[in-house]
Amino acid sequence: MRASNYSKTDVSSGFIHEDFLLSGDTARHLYHDYAKELPVIDYHNHLSPHLIAEDHRFANLTEIWLHGDHYKWRAMRALGVDEAFITGNGDPKGNFRQWAACLPRLIGNPLFHWSHMELKNTFGVNEFLNRDSADRIYDHCSERLQSPELSAHSILKSYRVEMVGTTDDPCDDLQSHWKLRHAATPFRVLPSFRPDSIFNIEDRESFLQYVSKLSSVSGIMITDMDSLLQALKNRIEFFHDCGCRIADHGLPHMPFSLEWSTGLEAEFRKFLAHKDAADFSDPDCFRGSLLIQLCIMYHQKGWVQQFHLGPIRNNNSRLLKKIGKDAGVDSIGDYPQALPLARFLDKLDASQSLAKTILYNINPADNEVFASMACNFNDGKITGKIQYGSGWWFLDQKDGIEKQISALSNMGVISTFIGMLTDSRSFLSYSRHEYFRRVLCNMFGQDMDKGYLPNDLNWVGGIIKDICYFNAKNYFEL
Amino acid sequence: MRASNYSKTDVSSGFIHEDFLLSGDTARHLYHDYAKELPVIDYHNHLSPHLIAEDHRFANLTEIWLHGDHYKWRAMRALGVDEAFITGNGDPKGNFRQWAACLPRLIGNPLFHWSHMELKNTFGVNEFLNRDSADRIYDHCSERLQSPELSAHSILKSYRVEMVGTTDDPCDDLQSHWKLRHAATPFRVLPSFRPDSIFNIEDRESFLQYVSKLSSVSGIMITDMDSLLQALKNRIEFFHDCGCRIADHGLPHMPFSLEWSTGLEAEFRKFLAHKDAADFSDPDCFRGSLLIQLCIMYHQKGWVQQFHLGPIRNNNSRLLKKIGKDAGVDSIGDYPQALPLARFLDKLDASQSLAKTILYNINPADNEVFASMACNFNDGKITGKIQYGSGWWFLDQKDGIEKQISALSNMGVISTFIGMLTDSRSFLSYSRHEYFRRVLCNMFGQDMDKGYLPNDLNWVGGIIKDICYFNAKNYFEL
Amino acid sequence: MRASNYSKTDVSSGFIHEDFLLSGDTARHLYHDYAKELPVIDYHNHLSPHLIAEDHRFANLTEIWLHGDHYKWRAMRALGVDEAFITGNGDPKGNFRQWAACLPRLIGNPLFHWSHMELKNTFGVNEFLNRDSADRIYDHCSERLQSPELSAHSILKSYRVEMVGTTDDPCDDLQSHWKLRHAATPFRVLPSFRPDSIFNIEDRESFLQYVSKLSSVSGIMITDMDSLLQALKNRIEFFHDCGCRIADHGLPHMPFSLEWSTGLEAEFRKFLAHKDAADFSDPDCFRGSLLIQLCIMYHQKGWVQQFHLGPIRNNNSRLLKKIGKDAGVDSIGDYPQALPLARFLDKLDASQSLAKTILYNINPADNEVFASMACNFNDGKITGKIQYGSGWWFLDQKDGIEKQISALSNMGVISTFIGMLTDSRSFLSYSRHEYFRRVLCNMFGQDMDKGYLPNDLNWVGGIIKDICYFNAKNYFEL
Repeated sequence: MRASNYSKTDVSSGFIHEDFLLSGDTARHLYHDYAKELPVIDYHNHLSPHLIAEDHRFANLTEIWLHGDHYKWRAMRALGVDEAFITGNGDPKGNFRQWAACLPRLIGNPLFHWSHMELKNTFGVNEFLNRDSADRIYDHCSERLQSPELSAHSILKSYRVEMVGTTDDPCDDLQSHWKLRHAATPFRVLPSFRPDSIFNIEDRESFLQYVSKLSSVSGIMITDMDSLLQALKNRIEFFHDCGCRIADHGLPHMPFSLEWSTGLEAEFRKFLAHKDAADFSDPDCFRGSLLIQLCIMYHQKGWVQQFHLGPIRNNNSRLLKKIGKDAGVDSIGDYPQALPLARFLDKLDASQSLAKTILYNINPADNEVFASMACNFNDGKITGKIQYGSGWWFLDQKDGIEKQISALSNMGVISTFIGMLTDSRSFLSYSRHEYFRRVLCNMFGQDMDKGYLPNDLNWVGGIIKDICYFNAKNYFEL
Repeated sequence: MRASNYSKTDVSSGFIHEDFLLSGDTARHLYHDYAKELPVIDYHNHLSPHLIAEDHRFANLTEIWLHGDHYKWRAMRALGVDEAFITGNGDPKGNFRQWAACLPRLIGNPLFHWSHMELKNTFGVNEFLNRDSADRIYDHCSERLQSPELSAHSILKSYRVEMVGTTDDPCDDLQSHWKLRHAATPFRVLPSFRPDSIFNIEDRESFLQYVSKLSSVSGIMITDMDSLLQALKNRIEFFHDCGCRIADHGLPHMPFSLEWSTGLEAEFRKFLAHKDAADFSDPDCFRGSLLIQLCIMYHQKGWVQQFHLGPIRNNNSRLLKKIGKDAGVDSIGDYPQALPLARFLDKLDASQSLAKTILYNINPADNEVFASMACNFNDGKITGKIQYGSGWWFLDQKDGIEKQISALSNMGVISTFIGMLTDSRSFLSYSRHEYFRRVLCNMFGQDMDKGYLPNDLNWVGGIIKDICYFNAKNYFEL
Repeated sequence: MRASNYSKTDVSSGFIHEDFLLSGDTARHLYHDYAKELPVIDYHNHLSPHLIAEDHRFANLTEIWLHGDHYKWRAMRALGVDEAFITGNGDPKGNFRQWAACLPRLIGNPLFHWSHMELKNTFGVNEFLNRDSADRIYDHCSERLQSPELSAHSILKSYRVEMVGTTDDPCDDLQSHWKLRHAATPFRVLPSFRPDSIFNIEDRESFLQYVSKLSSVSGIMITDMDSLLQALKNRIEFFHDCGCRIADHGLPHMPFSLEWSTGLEAEFRKFLAHKDAADFSDPDCFRGSLLIQLCIMYHQKGWVQQFHLGPIRNNNSRLLKKIGKDAGVDSIGDYPQALPLARFLDKLDASQSLAKTILYNINPADNEVFASMACNFNDGKITGKIQYGSGWWFLDQKDGIEKQISALSNMGVISTFIGMLTDSRSFLSYSRHEYFRRVLCNMFGQDMDKGYLPNDLNWVGGIIKDICYFNAKNYFEL
């Protein structure tokens, strides 16, 4: 009944060519003459510091490409692939074949572009991946992965990565980071401070376990808000010493209540002391009060703070139970964002405690809310102090990148933009910086061709260079 | 004072030509070689089963074209036409002239495209409709309608319709459907189960009348939630026996409360027994609990369930009183959709009771919420089990169709998409399938020309064929 | 570290050329043959009636261009310019240099287009403004401003302005407007009634001060809702006598509660009488009840009412304290708009009291909600009675204008659209009408070239003329 079997492989060569995504000479000049060769500052991702520190070599293409990639998992489920072949621990080549059979049906999805860019850029594969080419490509790539040329370090080097910003829990010992500080690598690996676990007070059991762990690593017994803040401050100092200059928070939306009260303090003490099994009555206020205090600490240390706002996570409780978090069952929320975000930023600004800030939204309907919000809190000192961050997660594709750039251009100042980050768990995702640069140059080039921007390659090319590299270098003081 | 009188008629020939909406050879090839000739599965519309069963012949162009078409009514009101000529029962030709005089001022609105496609495809009319051509076109078309070539059956045949999915109330006797099951038509007409009336518990009087009717047709005295569910189950069986395999619900948003309580049960019994004139205290929970139980029944029967979410209806109480529902005074709501939708689908999924599901949104700002939500609940068995449905109602135009396709491509798997439906009350609306196919082929063709999709007509054409026909055929097991 | 210094000036000539923003011959014909020469009806702006009445001459380019322009202020802050050079009262040329240095980094933002259009159209400047050209351009323009050719009247004449709709407080004596009614100008200057101050009951002190002022100017002692309404009615009559035919309201969203109660009336009397320092308990209901009554008065007078909905204002309390309102720290809100707006309009419509109405949204995610809402309340008498208004504030750029036109086309009737307004504080902003006309003609021209609209220049050109001029002339009965 299926109309076609999608099995052709012979037309692929040249799909990812040197002018991929670039329409017109101007866009091509901008990309090839200004953007292409610049180093990469990947200031926020989820790479494993451990794998970097040990200069890991991947056993096969399945390990480096399918493990942990919930984008691919979602797509495979939609195409009727059994979970055993998606997150199961069966034959890696068998799982890979299932993925390969899916890819031809993913045209239109960013996975189709990303996957073929990654195969070409890292492995030199020039044909389409599908059922027919699956084994050939699997064998070729898995063999290449045995070579030192495709160790973790080598991959980072090949993409001109200058800085890798990982995402780390406050309780982490940062052992791999300490090790990397003394390694002779052409890139720096820096931790980011992401204390999401301490915000999840609604899950009493996990929360108390985490508090206990935090007490232990900080050496500070947590019995109230004050000692909690002391313990977190202790970890911030520890992270700072290890080179951390970035904090990160993931929330559905900014908390509404920002003022701690003596009543809540008393309740919180009881809650911590296990004396009362009741849930904490005002988790929003706990989160708001804690976040404000943390942000004041970030400002004192001169850090950059990031806020990733808007997803609804773990929607499918069946898969949450089976696989755990980050199983590919998160999606885009539609919370009111503007008012709580404005009040939060204003409270910090009013007390001279607003650090450099990057705001990311997951719902593209919020693009203009975020883009216009950022500009309310610049201080006339730091260029582009409050950033409207690059297209995040589901928005990290051509369409989403274009919409973010467009909103930022129209509502803010695109020339101050610190540009792209991978936000990825995969070493192969560095092609996304190339992807972003192509989309960016294509937009500017097209606008020049239409006379919307000055027809001056050096002028526009300079701004392209700033967005792709120099703005981030200045912003993060690298 | 008006700048022009919009009266030219001589330039129209060729406006709806064979390559209408198709830019470039690739788009043309995709449409003409892959999409154009495919049959139509119109799995959701509001056609009258009665008119189909009797192979109705329409008295004139006004009857087939203006009666019941609230899209046209809205437009006429905006152009200052008196209600008497819109929904009044005056001279059909007089009303038609008013509509004809409006059409030249509707460029940019989908009505302009649709109307001229419908005049051309059904009646062979090649000129623009306006004040000058009104009588000529009215006479020509009304005469043609007397011919057996333009009976209800003939129209469906001429559009290659293979399946017609009507929308039916649970209390309906489906007499026309029973009759059609034994008719020798080249198309099948199947009912859909749409129990919206039983959800409107806020309108006490209408609700109790409806319960009484449902008791009567089901033969089950409804005195509590359990007997209500029994009665509805009885009707589901009845519909199933008549070939129904699709349910449909229209709601502003999914209910928040899904758990029935003994307290609410007691209140509901009183409410049904007229013992207490008070309103039911928790209509949201009534709707949520009832909907969950119905969805479990749909799953047991192997049906597909549809959810149309987001409109605000009957905004103009003056016209509601005068004309009734569906008067062209509904519009786009902006309710939070993500959380209640996620919780609803998860509850069904967690109990292994989630049927195949199609989610439609009316607010395009929710496109990405819906597209990403659908992918959370695929089960790795049924390809494209949870569908993000085609551009609905106000979104059923070029721009809306493109945005839906784009969101689905970026957030989901477009190749599994079951494609277009008319959702219309009119037999002439089948041109909307052609419209959709042209827009679809144009998007894919343009992306191929730009190098965003593989330049392989068979590969992409196969996906086009799946979206236009084969996916729906598989999904609905036709 | 900065990649480029953006200092070229020699490539600018011709950036703002006669076909700026116009792609293709059709778009060019539409603009040059139909749109360009039409007069301007600027029915809503924030120009100073005083400056018009005295035919003001501006001291220098900084006064006419930077004073009060919070768009520029935001951009400068984002580029790290010290507040002293933005809103400070230092050397005008020094402040201008700071602005000039920013402009090259604003490509992509509407300020870049607007600024160069304004320099060219008013001053004949043909080079890019930047650090190098700053002094030359400042001196040239400031000298030109001494000439009677660039007095307030002359500027309005040069842009073919036929009507100027200012925005005025109910307590204003309209002295400048009275003076202008007897002046021999080729344009009319008419006040609009904007009673926002009386809605801000949450700020008790300001509110009571305003009530006291309103009592004084109206001669009606305000002690309850009835006398408040009498006082406002008095001012409406006064405004009407001075030629006012338009009211305007700025709100985050329409109020939810529209029914005043005896309990609230008692509380309001106490509140006014200072007997109780407590805040008024239901500001939403106060606003709703008051607004309904005002709208009934507008309808009685045959006025047009405007609603500007959605911003969150004065987000940065530090700059609010330092500079006051309209400091460039407002942004886009995300309030639910549909339900309260529907209920509000329906209440007026049901009582035959709905005046001609223009609805503006600030959040582009609400475009379709507003566009579809407007069409619910047309009355079949007045063409385009309920208008979905032009792209407002942050949306007043190419992208925002295109999205508004697209939503209006798809959901409503673009041919009835009353078109552009500047909404600006600056005499130089009249180039925005040209900007809008170019964008409009480009969209229609492109659609004609693609075959989406009839290829009939007179037909489409007539609609262009209506949108640019004749619809507004009819709508406002000028």
